[in-house]
Amino acid sequence: MEPGRAIDGDPDRTPPHLVVSGIAPALRDGRYAVKRLVGDQLRVGADIFTDGHDVLAARVLCRAPGERRPASTPMTYSFEDDRWYATLSLDRPGEWRFMVEGWIDRFATWRGELDKKVGAGQDVGSELLEGADQVREAEPHARGTDHGRLAHYTAVLGDPSADPGVRVSAALSVELQVLMTAHGQPYGVTRSDRRYRVRVDRREAGFAAWYEFFPRSATSDARRHGTFADAEASLPRIAALGFDVVYLPPIHPIGHTHRKGPNNALKAGKGDPGSPWAIGNEHGGHTAVSPELGTLEDFRHFVATARSLGLEVALDYALQCSPDHPWVREHPDWFFIRPDGTIKYAENPPKKYEDIYPINFWCDQREALWDACRDIFLFWIAQGVRTFRVDNPHTKPFAFWEWMIGEVQREHPDTVFLAEAFTRPKRMYTLAQLGFTQSYTYFTWRNTAAELAEYLTELSAPETADFFRGNFFANTPDILHEYLQLGGPPAFRTRLLLAGTLSPLYGIYSGFELSENLPVREGSEEYLDSEKYQVRVRDWTAPGNLDPDIARLNQIRRSEPALQSITNLSFHESGHPDVLFYLKGAWGRDLLGAVSLNPREAVEAELAVPLERLGIGENATYEVEDLLTGERLRWKGARQPVRFDPAVRAGYIWRVAGGEGGGG
Amino acid sequence: MEPGRAIDGDPDRTPPHLVVSGIAPALRDGRYAVKRLVGDQLRVGADIFTDGHDVLAARVLCRAPGERRPASTPMTYSFEDDRWYATLSLDRPGEWRFMVEGWIDRFATWRGELDKKVGAGQDVGSELLEGADQVREAEPHARGTDHGRLAHYTAVLGDPSADPGVRVSAALSVELQVLMTAHGQPYGVTRSDRRYRVRVDRREAGFAAWYEFFPRSATSDARRHGTFADAEASLPRIAALGFDVVYLPPIHPIGHTHRKGPNNALKAGKGDPGSPWAIGNEHGGHTAVSPELGTLEDFRHFVATARSLGLEVALDYALQCSPDHPWVREHPDWFFIRPDGTIKYAENPPKKYEDIYPINFWCDQREALWDACRDIFLFWIAQGVRTFRVDNPHTKPFAFWEWMIGEVQREHPDTVFLAEAFTRPKRMYTLAQLGFTQSYTYFTWRNTAAELAEYLTELSAPETADFFRGNFFANTPDILHEYLQLGGPPAFRTRLLLAGTLSPLYGIYSGFELSENLPVREGSEEYLDSEKYQVRVRDWTAPGNLDPDIARLNQIRRSEPALQSITNLSFHESGHPDVLFYLKGAWGRDLLGAVSLNPREAVEAELAVPLERLGIGENATYEVEDLLTGERLRWKGARQPVRFDPAVRAGYIWRVAGGEGGGG
Repeated sequence: MEPGRAIDGDPDRTPPHLVVSGIAPALRDGRYAVKRLVGDQLRVGADIFTDGHDVLAARVLCRAPGERRPASTPMTYSFEDDRWYATLSLDRPGEWRFMVEGWIDRFATWRGELDKKVGAGQDVGSELLEGADQVREAEPHARGTDHGRLAHYTAVLGDPSADPGVRVSAALSVELQVLMTAHGQPYGVTRSDRRYRVRVDRREAGFAAWYEFFPRSATSDARRHGTFADAEASLPRIAALGFDVVYLPPIHPIGHTHRKGPNNALKAGKGDPGSPWAIGNEHGGHTAVSPELGTLEDFRHFVATARSLGLEVALDYALQCSPDHPWVREHPDWFFIRPDGTIKYAENPPKKYEDIYPINFWCDQREALWDACRDIFLFWIAQGVRTFRVDNPHTKPFAFWEWMIGEVQREHPDTVFLAEAFTRPKRMYTLAQLGFTQSYTYFTWRNTAAELAEYLTELSAPETADFFRGNFFANTPDILHEYLQLGGPPAFRTRLLLAGTLSPLYGIYSGFELSENLPVREGSEEYLDSEKYQVRVRDWTAPGNLDPDIARLNQIRRSEPALQSITNLSFHESGHPDVLFYLKGAWGRDLLGAVSLNPREAVEAELAVPLERLGIGENATYEVEDLLTGERLRWKGARQPVRFDPAVRAGYIWRVAGGEGGGG
Repeated sequence: MEPGRAIDGDPDRTPPHLVVSGIAPALRDGRYAVKRLVGDQLRVGADIFTDGHDVLAARVLCRAPGERRPASTPMTYSFEDDRWYATLSLDRPGEWRFMVEGWIDRFATWRGELDKKVGAGQDVGSELLEGADQVREAEPHARGTDHGRLAHYTAVLGDPSADPGVRVSAALSVELQVLMTAHGQPYGVTRSDRRYRVRVDRREAGFAAWYEFFPRSATSDARRHGTFADAEASLPRIAALGFDVVYLPPIHPIGHTHRKGPNNALKAGKGDPGSPWAIGNEHGGHTAVSPELGTLEDFRHFVATARSLGLEVALDYALQCSPDHPWVREHPDWFFIRPDGTIKYAENPPKKYEDIYPINFWCDQREALWDACRDIFLFWIAQGVRTFRVDNPHTKPFAFWEWMIGEVQREHPDTVFLAEAFTRPKRMYTLAQLGFTQSYTYFTWRNTAAELAEYLTELSAPETADFFRGNFFANTPDILHEYLQLGGPPAFRTRLLLAGTLSPLYGIYSGFELSENLPVREGSEEYLDSEKYQVRVRDWTAPGNLDPDIARLNQIRRSEPALQSITNLSFHESGHPDVLFYLKGAWGRDLLGAVSLNPREAVEAELAVPLERLGIGENATYEVEDLLTGERLRWKGARQPVRFDPAVRAGYIWRVAGGEGGGG
């Protein structure tokens, strides 16, 4: 009976001396990677113990991307929670892998016991000889002076004829301790069962303001299809508003067959541009640009100009084909074939989507297909794109995405994938766990203070934030929420303030700044005259636009660290059901947010300022600065009455300056 | 780029079609086994989903101990929590292993879509041909009539010239559905990453009352060392008290060298019996019995008599040796050798335990040593023993125990291991996770209502109960708590009632029934004249003994299912800080417990009966039976004033009969 055999049924593993478990951070015990950002500190914790009273030591072995060998970081013991900890600096993007290793420090154990026995006046002759053996064993691992000194100590400890006092003080000397720490060999080394993974993304992956627009609408005349050049001309305005990312719906050639007309009409009229999501025609597919928009050269120029303005370009990645897509001719076997040999269009019975062919991800040519899908990413990365908004990932295999994201990020660790998955929670979370950098959320459908507090409490919990980064879009071409339809501009200002302050990642879709809120019909979240099916011209200078609100918000976001994280969020008593009151903490720059969810009438609330959390004494006077107006106020005590008038403003963001006096 | 490659880094795994995760019950994602009892129902849950709208199916594949092939149990979908469930009956002890498997039911998917399309009046000619293909593929998997019927359906569905109405009703017929459920082949089969383990123990492992006593004290004359025969004579009394297990401290030969005298004196006097935990002398070691107690034959007779009285015998397993133990001569290399060649005695500097040699579990002859340790268990199992109380397991390697318990239970699945580990929580929990059937607890040191509620809430939580079974000893030879020292008989009655009603496993150590509570010195938890070092004679008929309380309690425990489980425990408002008020639920036989922790004075409390939990209307009248007196009471409403007089009783256990009327 080989003792090793019982350990996890693995015959090759001899039994571990220590227990090394409870590793954190970890997602499903290492099956998936937790997410962090470049510059973050990673605090690794572990339960490490053994039988008896031996002194233990432990370290984290962590391999950074691009490194051959892991770096070693010593762990320290925390008595309160009986755990070991080490902190690592994550200085580059990519996948980091770490494991935890513990062992018995035999010399420290021996030294500690010797110390106690000497203190108790016991005879330690035998102990000194044991120590001599340990030091002797260390000698071969040391060079030069160290080797000499170890030999010296071996002699002293090992010489029964020498003066006991001399031997004891040598045994307990700091020099010997240092030498043995350097050259003593670890005993009973035990490693964590698995290697744990950390996906580290560049900081923009965790903090950015997105602006979505259709380049074809960058025109002053609805009869003239906008081009990349036109779109380029609109970039300064977007940059001035303080956005970081401009996201374009698909820019590829659009199918003719069953092309949709305005307002999703089954038949397109002559000259109707069609939906950009019906990808592919005689000019090409996912790696081509629509001639109406310009050339690939034009696109690259657009990207370069954006970059010069501090803007990053994000593309849409929608894996579906119009009947005119080149793949349909070249690889009919990548689609679903009907008994009569024709290709199946998309449907969700009894609904039919005849302008789109779904892809058969499990076809016989699966590997060639999956590679081709990957090559689309590589192609656009070669054009300078690093961020992709993935259309409906939950309608494609989960395993496909895990493979795909792994493949692309291995070569291009700074690639960002945003999942547009509006589906049940477990599917959204699974997509985030298997690798999506960011995710759309239910934010759009959370419109009361209670709903928002509940949902944000879930998303800001560290165990969720470890893998899920919500990107809060206030609107999208598919979602014009009733709250905006009925609430008008005040509702828009409210949602803007919420999205931009609750989440480090947020976005709006073009037209939001004009409070566009006409649905195609009552009860629908679709826009009237949706840009998905036609070109739309807008007057950005129209009176009452939200540009000042947006510009100010994005400015504050950039200057306030508290708005660049989500785990620092907590909710507090607002004294009014329509008012959401929250704290976003940051050393020395704590922010308080208070937003009214009532776009129709003014409400008055009495906020309960979390003084203790802010380190302010109960009766202290403290200063807060209204970041939206710059006004400075002196407050005293926790209760603060506040008035919200939708006609004037949606809410407040105060930066709290430390309080004085009244401590406790 | 082979897509499979990215899946968990395993080149052989092709990507899974489905996501199969969130398997429960599971301990550290399958690393350890969860615990259940024979006769329990195991409810397996899993998150199973895929992309798109396909109809899924799933099953649990579970291999029972002794079976070659796993049995298949279909899982059903629960919409509320978006999970799949199946329930298995655990009909035998041993290690059960299960995995979860999900797949796409292509026929059900096709049938559902066809149904919708027909309903929408769409042309389904192509769909019928697809159906024909599916049925044709199933034919080879059917025999006889079924094969014929499938061929028939293939023909009907596949014949464009046949009447559409006929083809559709054939396609949607129940017969075809049944045939395809039986013979259609699963598609995209996906299994859980791991196999999950369930350790199933015989019921006594989870519900039993223990009685510990020293056989050498089963004598009427302290000068005469009790024998197995004497101990046998005391079994009827113990059986009459309603105990299930009699646990004996070590029965092996006791060492002479440095033998301890009464009250742990460093020198034993002539005729002092010594501590049974100093195991081994010239008569043998761990597989011998002390001649003073009798012969192995006598012991087997003792075990047989116990069994005839419905009592099971539990032995102590203490891995340590007196200097006179045979192993010291035969295998000095199994111990720690000092530089002068002598063997190291146990110590915890500056404390010394010269009568005991610790074992070196990592010696060069480790495998022989570990096997010898295992053979001790096998030896006593051969003598009819099935339950072992393991002494200080936390001072031996954790890996040793995981291996040991696995080895023994593989051959003898009904073996019970009780861990006597009073150490930090993670170590206690780890020992339970790696295999110990039961564990000692901190119960002895939880003596206020608040402490008990907090600790029991932790132990009764399903995630804890999945691996940790506390055995609540009210006292042990090592632990006479101050609460008993100061509280006297009332305190004993209180602790007895708490141990026996809060936990399905509890025990007392002989002398408890006489309220023995003299410590060796003030502030010590050691008994005066401890039985560990001398023979003690007792008068079981002494007035005021607790026999009636014990007998009644054990009787109630056996008749009330509510007392045979712990996850059914909840605490409720008692209206007094000294009073613990709790509910133990069982279908139709809910019990309420109320115990005063104040052994000195009477207290009055107003209990808040959890009517809703009991299914009783707010204003209903309901009957409760006082199980300690048999008295029946009619209560109305939630508030019930109760008086506790330590001179009379420690508390109450009421069985609640369903209420009438007033349905709240």
